[in-house]
Amino acid sequence: MTETQLSILKEAIHTIPDYPKPGILFRDVTGILDSAEAFALTIDLLKEKYKNQGFTKIVGTEARGFLFGAPLALALNIGFVPVRKPGKLPRPTFSQDYQLEYGTDTLEIHQDALTATDKVLIVDDLLATGGTIEATLKLIERVGAKATDAAFVISLPDLGGEKTLAKCKLNVYSLLQYAGD
Amino acid sequence: MTETQLSILKEAIHTIPDYPKPGILFRDVTGILDSAEAFALTIDLLKEKYKNQGFTKIVGTEARGFLFGAPLALALNIGFVPVRKPGKLPRPTFSQDYQLEYGTDTLEIHQDALTATDKVLIVDDLLATGGTIEATLKLIERVGAKATDAAFVISLPDLGGEKTLAKCKLNVYSLLQYAGD
Repeated sequence: MTETQLSILKEAIHTIPDYPKPGILFRDVTGILDSAEAFALTIDLLKEKYKNQGFTKIVGTEARGFLFGAPLALALNIGFVPVRKPGKLPRPTFSQDYQLEYGTDTLEIHQDALTATDKVLIVDDLLATGGTIEATLKLIERVGAKATDAAFVISLPDLGGEKTLAKCKLNVYSLLQYAGD
Repeated sequence: MTETQLSILKEAIHTIPDYPKPGILFRDVTGILDSAEAFALTIDLLKEKYKNQGFTKIVGTEARGFLFGAPLALALNIGFVPVRKPGKLPRPTFSQDYQLEYGTDTLEIHQDALTATDKVLIVDDLLATGGTIEATLKLIERVGAKATDAAFVISLPDLGGEKTLAKCKLNVYSLLQYAGD
């Protein structure tokens, strides 16, 4: 990525202090979507990274994963599979619980969403602890497919997501890293 | 749309009987996303319909509106603004309640998401009663912008959404109509 490209992306990201709670610097990607230039650049950079590698499907998690995963699937000319909150997918699903800071949450995938021949790229807006991505990976494996890579617009390395996903044997890539927050 | 294009889209849509409750035929767009051909065709057809008309932003509603609205914004080279469930947008928001079959729900938009010079296209996967779109329109007007058109992959004309949105002076277009369910 060139310095100019980096500054287009960085300028598009809003940083919200003390959201959702005191002491947190929230990195808000809605400014990337709002800028036709920054949005197109984001998808172009991810397309360049992942083209011609044999990926057959992108899996994205509700709801911000849809915003980047669906356009990237179109750009790579492959299909997109949504992972959703419980009760949102109409056909038979598999479910996977995962840990939140307080309590647990659940994600679901259609049982027929992927096959054993699929090579999957997971896409989300931001990598923090990696909990939702780990749950998404388990759902992909439960369906019988293989995910090798996970792509993010932003990662927050201090929160340990890269390490968690490396243990899951996922190759992780992010366009922007915010460390030391 | 050609007969071939129509059959590509219709074959991609799953119809789920008795979901989410007995007597309902649920039209499931995940099959369009799953097929690179059907997904690209959907976005191409909507791009042809809306290009060169002066739209400056697409607004899409969480979560399925993200799946079609964000790629269409990229294709039209304009920005995308998300309308979300309460508590999901980090900057100051406006809120709008709307009626569900039982009870009410709420949608939010960032207060600085649009300006008075914006001409907005609303995008969602499916038009049923039009309740969420009417709420989305009110949010766009509250921010001070103008929405003239709403585009859908599917409409269910028997549920009255077209009439509701015509009263709101929105031009409505859908790629596929399922009547008489």
